[in-house]
Amino acid sequence: MGTYPTPQATALVLARVRERRPRVHCLMNTVVQKFTADGLAALGAIPSMTGSIDEVEAFVTKADALAVNLGTLDEERRRAIQLGVDTARGKGKPWIIDPVHCDYSPGRLVFAQCLIAQGPSALRGNADEIRALGDTGAGLVIETGRIDRLVRGDDRIEIANGHPWMAQVTGTGCLSGALIAAFMTVEPDPLAASAAAMLVVGVAAEMAAEHASGPGSFGVALLDALAAVGKSDIVSRGKVTHEKA
Amino acid sequence: MGTYPTPQATALVLARVRERRPRVHCLMNTVVQKFTADGLAALGAIPSMTGSIDEVEAFVTKADALAVNLGTLDEERRRAIQLGVDTARGKGKPWIIDPVHCDYSPGRLVFAQCLIAQGPSALRGNADEIRALGDTGAGLVIETGRIDRLVRGDDRIEIANGHPWMAQVTGTGCLSGALIAAFMTVEPDPLAASAAAMLVVGVAAEMAAEHASGPGSFGVALLDALAAVGKSDIVSRGKVTHEKA
Amino acid sequence: MGTYPTPQATALVLARVRERRPRVHCLMNTVVQKFTADGLAALGAIPSMTGSIDEVEAFVTKADALAVNLGTLDEERRRAIQLGVDTARGKGKPWIIDPVHCDYSPGRLVFAQCLIAQGPSALRGNADEIRALGDTGAGLVIETGRIDRLVRGDDRIEIANGHPWMAQVTGTGCLSGALIAAFMTVEPDPLAASAAAMLVVGVAAEMAAEHASGPGSFGVALLDALAAVGKSDIVSRGKVTHEKA
Repeated sequence: MGTYPTPQATALVLARVRERRPRVHCLMNTVVQKFTADGLAALGAIPSMTGSIDEVEAFVTKADALAVNLGTLDEERRRAIQLGVDTARGKGKPWIIDPVHCDYSPGRLVFAQCLIAQGPSALRGNADEIRALGDTGAGLVIETGRIDRLVRGDDRIEIANGHPWMAQVTGTGCLSGALIAAFMTVEPDPLAASAAAMLVVGVAAEMAAEHASGPGSFGVALLDALAAVGKSDIVSRGKVTHEKA
Repeated sequence: MGTYPTPQATALVLARVRERRPRVHCLMNTVVQKFTADGLAALGAIPSMTGSIDEVEAFVTKADALAVNLGTLDEERRRAIQLGVDTARGKGKPWIIDPVHCDYSPGRLVFAQCLIAQGPSALRGNADEIRALGDTGAGLVIETGRIDRLVRGDDRIEIANGHPWMAQVTGTGCLSGALIAAFMTVEPDPLAASAAAMLVVGVAAEMAAEHASGPGSFGVALLDALAAVGKSDIVSRGKVTHEKA
Repeated sequence: MGTYPTPQATALVLARVRERRPRVHCLMNTVVQKFTADGLAALGAIPSMTGSIDEVEAFVTKADALAVNLGTLDEERRRAIQLGVDTARGKGKPWIIDPVHCDYSPGRLVFAQCLIAQGPSALRGNADEIRALGDTGAGLVIETGRIDRLVRGDDRIEIANGHPWMAQVTGTGCLSGALIAAFMTVEPDPLAASAAAMLVVGVAAEMAAEHASGPGSFGVALLDALAAVGKSDIVSRGKVTHEKA
């Protein structure tokens, strides 16, 4: 355990994603639906996005994993999310929760805490969101930022890849959550899957920045890089450390 | 009939679209609204997108054609779509239906079949969707994929343009449906209009791929190419065959 | 008063936006949510987008300004917008209204007029929209087009920057409204703030066009330019005139 995930192991997990082409259903905020779908497709996964109460069960059943995102949350999305989570849990599919902006709205914070109590495979947020949530008992917490920090029990993984432009492109965090869901379909250990996904995103971001001249072209180049990133990129650029407390 | 649509004829229809600047109202899934609007505008058409029950009748009345897309379908969108279809039929405006992911959800499949029974000018889908629908009695079926196949009665048109990156950019199919609607405003024969639209999209995709380095930049370049594509491109690249059964 | 806003003054206001990093809540149509958020972030502001009835009050309270946009308007968005406006007025925060396509739908026109009667800091629309609204009594009217015209009482400012591709990228007008909201957080005179914002957008558009080969790449380059535009660009390119009637 003490040495995973190496860049080499990450490259193998990425190859398995591209081979399997997993279906990831996203209950995603309306702002970044296309960016998330395009990012999943660039990686080799198959996205779907409907949030309709009538259809969520069928779509989650057909999917291999579920990504839940709390942006642009309203009553209908709350119901669809609970139904999607029920379906994922009932079928034993991995699911991740991204509590976007839960630090802005008390209702959203409580809803996030209720969902986390239902045992997601992973929780991903920024520092403000993770702090606002307090001690949720989540098994695996992924705090993304300049350094991405993944914590589960005694395990602590840090990833130092990425680029500052990520913060200026709306949806890079949301997309990261969906990509983690894709990785969890081929790697049964959620910590290893999440670390591999975040390492791939971070390396792809560095590759993208070399082809961009600002946040607009960076967002486009990130999709190109997610399609192009391979073993040699990950091995040469990956900056990941793992320690046991 | 046996020789249309030639690339030359397609170029003339495209020129008429750009001259008329038709208004196309789209009842579009929330994921690809902007991409569809930008694609229509790049071609020279004028998009509108509202799906509000209160406003659909006014917007469809003002439009020259209607594009109906079943992605992200919920009860409100179902009502808006039926209202939009009623308006288009009542005013004699061309309308197309795109039954996105109807193979995922039984309710969506039934709704698609009900709409098709109301006589759209054209039905566009991928192979899985067309297969799931079964024999709908649709007058004109456009199955898009590596080869686009248009079938109406004895007529069968195949178009061999396009690029594999289209499958990695969410919404290229949805956009194709909206562009067909635009072409139907200037070419009264739905088969000729649809073939012209699909040929233009396929040629534009090939042009775009030459300026792209992955699916992200391809999606952007496709919009540039829809604005730039002209007669010489269509004539030099167009691969269309027409046969009578 | 008779000499503002100079390009030099505009550059100072822009620098204040980047230093303050204001939060702008947008009640934005679903089509251009991401483009608007990315444009605000490129400029240095912090966007939020939820339109949920449950959350609007908390988000507007946390924000420094509110941008209201009437695209894709339905009953739920109408309620959220009224709630957002009530909150902004109650807390004394600047707010702008963009009555998208109010010339298409009688209901939307009436709703726009009701909102304008509540005293927004500014009203922004295209010529058709402003004409449809008639005499609303709005204190500050910004009519954008080939020439942007800002009128308040006797003051009339014209800005002759920009690029024709703006009309082919869905959401450039909506984004302009949101950027004006950002500028109003650091410049208390709404006319000076709006003129500065429109001058920055127009200059950024000219910079973007030099790096683009069509409307797709122009939309991307506009985001890059909003991040890059600086004093020397504004001073060398800005074309603004101010007169008193």
